[in-house]
Amino acid sequence: MSTRESLIESTRSLLWERGYVGTSPKAIQQRAGAGQGSMYHHFAGKEDLALAAIRRSAEELRAAADAQLSADGTALVRIEAFLRRERDVLRGCPIGRLTQDPDVMATAALREPVEETFDWLRTRLARVLEEARERGELELDPHTTAQTIVAVLQGAYVLARAADDPQRFDDAITGVLGLLTHSSIGTE
Amino acid sequence: MSTRESLIESTRSLLWERGYVGTSPKAIQQRAGAGQGSMYHHFAGKEDLALAAIRRSAEELRAAADAQLSADGTALVRIEAFLRRERDVLRGCPIGRLTQDPDVMATAALREPVEETFDWLRTRLARVLEEARERGELELDPHTTAQTIVAVLQGAYVLARAADDPQRFDDAITGVLGLLTHSSIGTE
Repeated sequence: MSTRESLIESTRSLLWERGYVGTSPKAIQQRAGAGQGSMYHHFAGKEDLALAAIRRSAEELRAAADAQLSADGTALVRIEAFLRRERDVLRGCPIGRLTQDPDVMATAALREPVEETFDWLRTRLARVLEEARERGELELDPHTTAQTIVAVLQGAYVLARAADDPQRFDDAITGVLGLLTHSSIGTE
Repeated sequence: MSTRESLIESTRSLLWERGYVGTSPKAIQQRAGAGQGSMYHHFAGKEDLALAAIRRSAEELRAAADAQLSADGTALVRIEAFLRRERDVLRGCPIGRLTQDPDVMATAALREPVEETFDWLRTRLARVLEEARERGELELDPHTTAQTIVAVLQGAYVLARAADDPQRFDDAITGVLGLLTHSSIGTE
């Protein structure tokens, strides 16, 4: 791994574990095994590094979601594959957790990729639901239903963390899939 | 307001604004207009005060939810009244936000009322859904559907904060109400 890569990956894990305020340039350098001069050669400072780290997490989330939502099968099968993919539930969503980080939310440049990621996901899910409507599988408003699916996913992390139990996550996902199944045309 | 009350209310607002680590005994005393001796007369320390503050927020949340979910009307009408009640959306849920506070989650005594509140809410919603099933209004699994409704509510806060826009909250709520309506027996 190049020094630049190593700095980004170290920032990602520190942001996830300690939040923005708890992530010092010194800690990033130590974890990356990089010197101060090397860090400032690649990045303007902590905010610049955090931005690269958040963008990297966002890219990974989008790539994984797109692979599942673009696969073959009905809308319901693809949405289920997306919602049920393996996740480190108790650590929380690497993007969603940032919304509870006051320093990230207060910094427009850092909040932007968080907002964009959720907008992208909502739009991608809405397209799946729109296609399902055109094929006569589902008769739901694509925009608000897609927003609900993103919300369930984020809220499911919150509930699992509150109980320190990934089962809460699974139950919330099972519930929304049940609602989508009941809303499918021809299944009632 | 008594000094004890004033200390609890000051801790609640500080916890909401700054999180546990950012809430010092000194800041609590200043906001409450209470001296150090007075604080330690009423509470053993910061953790004890935080516990009283979290319990107070939990009680208020339960009382408000119970009023709406115990009202007259169909399950759908009561759930809609609960989900659409006025909220300070961009500040986040006073209970849900605590799940992203590492110090609160790492302290069993402080996590307990957070977990209990979500369990209470899920159980209360499941009872509404169970009654609806008995009356033939809805045919959904009460437990997982209730967990989904709690998750949508928590996730809706996350999305509104990410976009700095309460409309994201409203859209997620509209979507889940649409799903519940589609799942109602006799509406399709």
